[in-house]
Amino acid sequence: MNSVVIIGTGLIGASIGLALREAGFAGAIVGIDASGDELKAAQELHAIDTAARSPEEHRAAIASADVIVLAVPVLGILHWMQQIAPTLRDGQLVTDVGSTKVKIAEAAQTLMPGRCLPGHPMAGKESGGAALAEAGLFRGATWLFTPLHEFTAIEIEWRGWVTKFGANILDLPAEQHDRICAWVSHMPQMVATAMSSVLEDEFGDSAEMRAIGGRALREMTRLGSSPYSMWRDIAHTNETPIAETLHTLEQRLQHMRENLKTAQLRDEFQKANAFRFRT
Amino acid sequence: MNSVVIIGTGLIGASIGLALREAGFAGAIVGIDASGDELKAAQELHAIDTAARSPEEHRAAIASADVIVLAVPVLGILHWMQQIAPTLRDGQLVTDVGSTKVKIAEAAQTLMPGRCLPGHPMAGKESGGAALAEAGLFRGATWLFTPLHEFTAIEIEWRGWVTKFGANILDLPAEQHDRICAWVSHMPQMVATAMSSVLEDEFGDSAEMRAIGGRALREMTRLGSSPYSMWRDIAHTNETPIAETLHTLEQRLQHMRENLKTAQLRDEFQKANAFRFRT
Repeated sequence: MNSVVIIGTGLIGASIGLALREAGFAGAIVGIDASGDELKAAQELHAIDTAARSPEEHRAAIASADVIVLAVPVLGILHWMQQIAPTLRDGQLVTDVGSTKVKIAEAAQTLMPGRCLPGHPMAGKESGGAALAEAGLFRGATWLFTPLHEFTAIEIEWRGWVTKFGANILDLPAEQHDRICAWVSHMPQMVATAMSSVLEDEFGDSAEMRAIGGRALREMTRLGSSPYSMWRDIAHTNETPIAETLHTLEQRLQHMRENLKTAQLRDEFQKANAFRFRT
Repeated sequence: MNSVVIIGTGLIGASIGLALREAGFAGAIVGIDASGDELKAAQELHAIDTAARSPEEHRAAIASADVIVLAVPVLGILHWMQQIAPTLRDGQLVTDVGSTKVKIAEAAQTLMPGRCLPGHPMAGKESGGAALAEAGLFRGATWLFTPLHEFTAIEIEWRGWVTKFGANILDLPAEQHDRICAWVSHMPQMVATAMSSVLEDEFGDSAEMRAIGGRALREMTRLGSSPYSMWRDIAHTNETPIAETLHTLEQRLQHMRENLKTAQLRDEFQKANAFRFRT
């Protein structure tokens, strides 16, 4: 691997550039981003060496890269995959960091068989943007991959770099990835959004509500500040699994609501206690 | 105020004893608790001077106290109110720290008119027990009161001590208290319990689920470790307001589930963004 192009130089993309450098990668890192500001910020941080700005520069950067990292939201990844598929040559690897994997794995099999290793680092911050990028962002984090064929030489090399970033690799089939992520990430987000939304309807900026709400309320609604722009693509590309988790939760809440004074409520608390999430 | 009896010397009761001392209270503080261990721990911390252990010692302590602080769960508070009501004399104050106020205010009006100022400090820790008690537990916290009549002299004095603890007093009618607490405290708890419970059903101790779940999942399920023993009394004495919040949330989740791919989802995210909870 002598050259990498990172498409999307926000928090994750720019952190990958910094992590590569910290891990000793000495080749070229070119950045592409729809936002000139993000591109400039990534370059100032030395997360990328050069910024490709025009369509011609994009084509040249992609043509000469050994690894093409797609670090934009999921619908953007699917769009870029269609754009670059006709120009790919043997030995190039396309990988991504998208939050859902079924649609991306489908596109990979159709558009670029044998040339794509979908990925998903479980890392991030409350806000995005290249300015918050860090070489250590992936240290100790799980980096999911969805292998679609026997590993190629360039895939094995990319996985080696990810390990050098300090991440722990876990391979999962696309359907299993999207189903687990629906439960542990997408459902919590939708619940925090729903809670924040009903509280906004009920209280707006009520001083009494804010004086009374404590740590529990802050924690349970923190994700309510997540922007739709981040979540639209996830909801679009993982609709059925997310809908299943929400339906299950709605039924459980109804059951608890109908049993606030019965021993059934105790059973739910005991099951929740048993869950006792660690790490 | 020359003497106080604290009934229930767990985290909140023992912290009240310590806060009184730190604020300069020089009178007697007697403790009562069903658990000999909690009583001993409170005494060793100097949260109480003496422990009243037998029914005779209880009666004597209560008879000689200017202020009787009920710091047990809500059903326990209602039980103690019935026990002590016949023995109360002019000038004594009964106050409490219970999580719901409608049932307690009703009992106060019936059993001890003019002698009770229900209260509710919004403070606590993840675990209970006298061993975790602190004089500073109430500093900066909101301490809710539900005044039931013109303030008496002893009530004004007790409110002065609460202010010296560093707490901010907020007076709310009982119905309003229970309704707001249902939204900002009881609903978040029930949701965390429901989420933890469905995740336990779905995954148990699955290593993959735990490797993938991050900060969002930890935060959204932290309250899942709350014990039923703490919440049974709250669910029993605030059933209708809690059921209303859960029903509203169920409907909102259903709406989002049915609109994962429409602009309605964007509207919910925008409303949630507007909520932006500040401490």
